[in-house]
Amino acid sequence: MLLADIGNSYFHIYDGSKVEHLSYKEAISKYSKELLCYISVKQQLDTAIQDIALWKNISAQMELQGAYETMGVDRKALCLSHKDGVFVDAGSAITVDIMQDGTYMGGFIYPGLKAMLDTYAAISPALETQLNEKISLVRLPTTTKDGISYGIIASIKALIDKHSNGKKLYFTGGDGKLLSSFFKEATYDEMLVFDGMRKVIKEAEIC
Amino acid sequence: MLLADIGNSYFHIYDGSKVEHLSYKEAISKYSKELLCYISVKQQLDTAIQDIALWKNISAQMELQGAYETMGVDRKALCLSHKDGVFVDAGSAITVDIMQDGTYMGGFIYPGLKAMLDTYAAISPALETQLNEKISLVRLPTTTKDGISYGIIASIKALIDKHSNGKKLYFTGGDGKLLSSFFKEATYDEMLVFDGMRKVIKEAEIC
Repeated sequence: MLLADIGNSYFHIYDGSKVEHLSYKEAISKYSKELLCYISVKQQLDTAIQDIALWKNISAQMELQGAYETMGVDRKALCLSHKDGVFVDAGSAITVDIMQDGTYMGGFIYPGLKAMLDTYAAISPALETQLNEKISLVRLPTTTKDGISYGIIASIKALIDKHSNGKKLYFTGGDGKLLSSFFKEATYDEMLVFDGMRKVIKEAEIC
Repeated sequence: MLLADIGNSYFHIYDGSKVEHLSYKEAISKYSKELLCYISVKQQLDTAIQDIALWKNISAQMELQGAYETMGVDRKALCLSHKDGVFVDAGSAITVDIMQDGTYMGGFIYPGLKAMLDTYAAISPALETQLNEKISLVRLPTTTKDGISYGIIASIKALIDKHSNGKKLYFTGGDGKLLSSFFKEATYDEMLVFDGMRKVIKEAEIC
């Protein structure tokens, strides 16, 4: 059986051995004849997918103690993967969530790295640049490119550091590996959301 | 004589007693017959303004020790206002610059508050919200609105705090007052850029 995490930009599908990242159209055309359990943050996609008889929406089963009503189901699944830790999902948006003893303590949302770069470019052509992926965080920047890269990376890092308090740091998502490289001890694992889904499926005996 | 700081969105004009914030058109139609010294970050506006005989561009005179070549002239003027401190200009973009013993040490750039909110909204309709201007920074947020407000404010605050090291914090710009409210000891002053310009004008005997 396949597991899918339907995000704002991509379809992430786990087939039991590897994770694929597909467009919505690709995912539907490739897997609509297979058994699949999914969670989705996309409300507007639901009717198109509901017609697929072999696909089952298990979003409502992702129950997380302490979670708030409008919390994205992918964040819930991510937090369900471990009982303690700081969970960072770096995709279209970057979500940072804190778990303690199996209870959700709260979290915050930051724009994704690409969205941040687009934002600078929209403010002024002078601020249109690429991310310096090797930006030093120990030296103050003295160029526009580095000042922007530092503004993006160092601000989110400063806030994550403030909340880590010795907790384990877990990263996932398209930019998770890159972002995790700025932390001394961090785990990058693209399986985390699926781990949370599998736990729920096993415990609730669904799918 | 008038002083003007031409930014990415507005014309800021100081007439000796108060600061006015005008659109480009308003500023040109209201003051083109008066003596005015200006600095400008807008390259594309220069030809329209160069024709005004009574207006003088003093951007090149804003010399700041340690500054880098493409550093915005408004940031230079702001840093020239005091020899030591952390200088935050919260407008279309938020710039944070550090001065020590009259020398520029470096700085970074963050999108403005409005640009940040627009960025979230562009990522997903579920992230379209207003800023909670009273967001608590001591409690982890547990709603989408607060998670976004916290993501914006707490991240920039964490990074500014990291660089303050007992230095005085100076805020200016349209959102400077709001942003300064999240810091224990901070000075908000809309005159800072003009103070820097006046120092240069006095020392170099220009204008």
